[in-house]
Amino acid sequence: MEAASASGGELLRVDADVLRLTTQAILEHSGLPASDAGRAAEALVSADLRGVDTHGVSNMLPVYLNWLANGHAVADPRTEVTREAPATANIDGGFGLGVAIAPQAMVLAMEKAAKTGVGMVTVHNTRHLGMAAYHSMLALDRGMIGLCLSAVGPRVLPTFGREARLGTNPIAVAAPAGDQPPFVYDAATSVITSNEVRTSHRLGRELPAGTVADETGTPLPEPRVAPPTSDHTFLLPLGSSYETGSHKGYGLAATVEVLSSVLGAATTMMTLGNGTANHLLAAIDIEAFVDLTSFTEAMDQFLTTLLGTPAARGRDRVVYAGYPEWETEQQRRRTGIPLHPQVLEWFAHRCAEADIAPLEVSS
Amino acid sequence: MEAASASGGELLRVDADVLRLTTQAILEHSGLPASDAGRAAEALVSADLRGVDTHGVSNMLPVYLNWLANGHAVADPRTEVTREAPATANIDGGFGLGVAIAPQAMVLAMEKAAKTGVGMVTVHNTRHLGMAAYHSMLALDRGMIGLCLSAVGPRVLPTFGREARLGTNPIAVAAPAGDQPPFVYDAATSVITSNEVRTSHRLGRELPAGTVADETGTPLPEPRVAPPTSDHTFLLPLGSSYETGSHKGYGLAATVEVLSSVLGAATTMMTLGNGTANHLLAAIDIEAFVDLTSFTEAMDQFLTTLLGTPAARGRDRVVYAGYPEWETEQQRRRTGIPLHPQVLEWFAHRCAEADIAPLEVSS
Repeated sequence: MEAASASGGELLRVDADVLRLTTQAILEHSGLPASDAGRAAEALVSADLRGVDTHGVSNMLPVYLNWLANGHAVADPRTEVTREAPATANIDGGFGLGVAIAPQAMVLAMEKAAKTGVGMVTVHNTRHLGMAAYHSMLALDRGMIGLCLSAVGPRVLPTFGREARLGTNPIAVAAPAGDQPPFVYDAATSVITSNEVRTSHRLGRELPAGTVADETGTPLPEPRVAPPTSDHTFLLPLGSSYETGSHKGYGLAATVEVLSSVLGAATTMMTLGNGTANHLLAAIDIEAFVDLTSFTEAMDQFLTTLLGTPAARGRDRVVYAGYPEWETEQQRRRTGIPLHPQVLEWFAHRCAEADIAPLEVSS
Repeated sequence: MEAASASGGELLRVDADVLRLTTQAILEHSGLPASDAGRAAEALVSADLRGVDTHGVSNMLPVYLNWLANGHAVADPRTEVTREAPATANIDGGFGLGVAIAPQAMVLAMEKAAKTGVGMVTVHNTRHLGMAAYHSMLALDRGMIGLCLSAVGPRVLPTFGREARLGTNPIAVAAPAGDQPPFVYDAATSVITSNEVRTSHRLGRELPAGTVADETGTPLPEPRVAPPTSDHTFLLPLGSSYETGSHKGYGLAATVEVLSSVLGAATTMMTLGNGTANHLLAAIDIEAFVDLTSFTEAMDQFLTTLLGTPAARGRDRVVYAGYPEWETEQQRRRTGIPLHPQVLEWFAHRCAEADIAPLEVSS
């Protein structure tokens, strides 16, 4: 299923807590322990609340259930700490869902950070972790900065290449502020993602120049309707072309691979292939460096100055990472999460199958 | 002075060790303790060896000496650890040169990493640290991954803005390999730097579309000769325009600011202004996660697969971060470092002034 917001159909709204509890029940029915199902459901609905529909229940829950059904992911994995030091750990995820294991890895990183100043935990033998921002944001309430990196299967060209070698490998960083919404960065190290290419192709929309490359590895010189990445279109690293710095995005994607896959699993996603993932979660205890109140005051000053930047010609306003998502969350907490009728049908089917109370639509 | 390689004049070559010792002597004459002068000289000449001429002796040594002469930087600073935990420290740099203090911070980070698995050290009240890669590379021989972030004065637009709010804020990451040259990433989070804009303007060369913005905050829609950043040209974050992901580069630049300035100094470069800098150095002990030999073998496989990527149409080859710089270093270690006659004149003048043996030209 595509993101509801891209589908053009009439949207109905569901209360976030209702959606979370139903999602948890569905995951429990698929064999996840209650605590894992709760964490995974919270991560999924957090994406929906923040307007990151690509990583919410509509897109990802069916994928996860499919993986659990066909054995690509294990519902109740035996996770194990394979190596540990005072500030670090490496977790074998037992091929469980990253979206359920990453929050536990983040909790371990935070426990370590509380003692040593910083905690860093890799997770290998696991699957997709959903919206990376969710895991980094777990640090916010503890006066910490959270980081989350995730290496995924190859879809992105190296600069000057014409075969995919790197994943979209997102980087997420969350830092608390005082009065301002927190700084929450979460971005793929590619220009756009496969999902965006697929959606544009389906709707017959042109992709902007420099967003993807053709089968010769050449970045689109002008806007064009491009086939999906499964059919001779390649993703480009952030920076688009060498002239505008694609080697920088390429190096960032490689950095995520080194810190997640090579450090945690002593292998790469090129070996593991699509559908796999390796992660790194880290927490930095702010009080180990400066007073938390000094930090949050400086953050407020930083963030309000960014918001106050005069807008470029023809543009409305300047925001910062996490700000529009925070605005969306405020609204969706009040009005509910918009879901496409097809998604609601899917939920109705799943709930009936699992003997769970059907999802209640709030409007 | 501009980088020698951009000047077009005839270049003479100087042996790297000779250049390093002379640079150290000049810095000692300016009041730096021998150990600090040695570290700074090694960092500068490392940039020259790797072909990063913008951060070598030609460009940066005169700037540093100027700062020492006019009091903007302190030659023999009283540095102090203001806060410390088992895996972290925050260093007050006493307004000394970052290029001399950052290596000490990296050594401290590595000592901590050897005990706890990861070490993270911020440095505030300090100045420019030269080529960020140098500091991250100090980790390579210790079986560690090195990271170096540096927040500098605002020159870069936020996405949709028309006033500079962020520095070029580089990110450097060095990871050891086995038989392959190490992975060494070092890049500004902007598309290009002020130095590149200035050089292009001086030589009357057009900048590619999307590299900078005009005074209205609009990214160049086509190649153009643009004035320097001191005169109505703004740097753009990596990604160039919103359509091709400039909000991702903007968020990365902000992340460097948060992790360097806000975490270490509880302030921002917008308050401190140009000519200042704050840094974060970190080291990750690979053996805390996996066997070092497993890691370096996986790195070799990763890096050789990247090098073996088929080239895009019209392109020669695919490399990885640090590979071309390593090639340049191999060559320059043999043939010497090329310097412009004006740079040699400058050295001759400085050496005479300081009663140091003149720099010997090898060819």
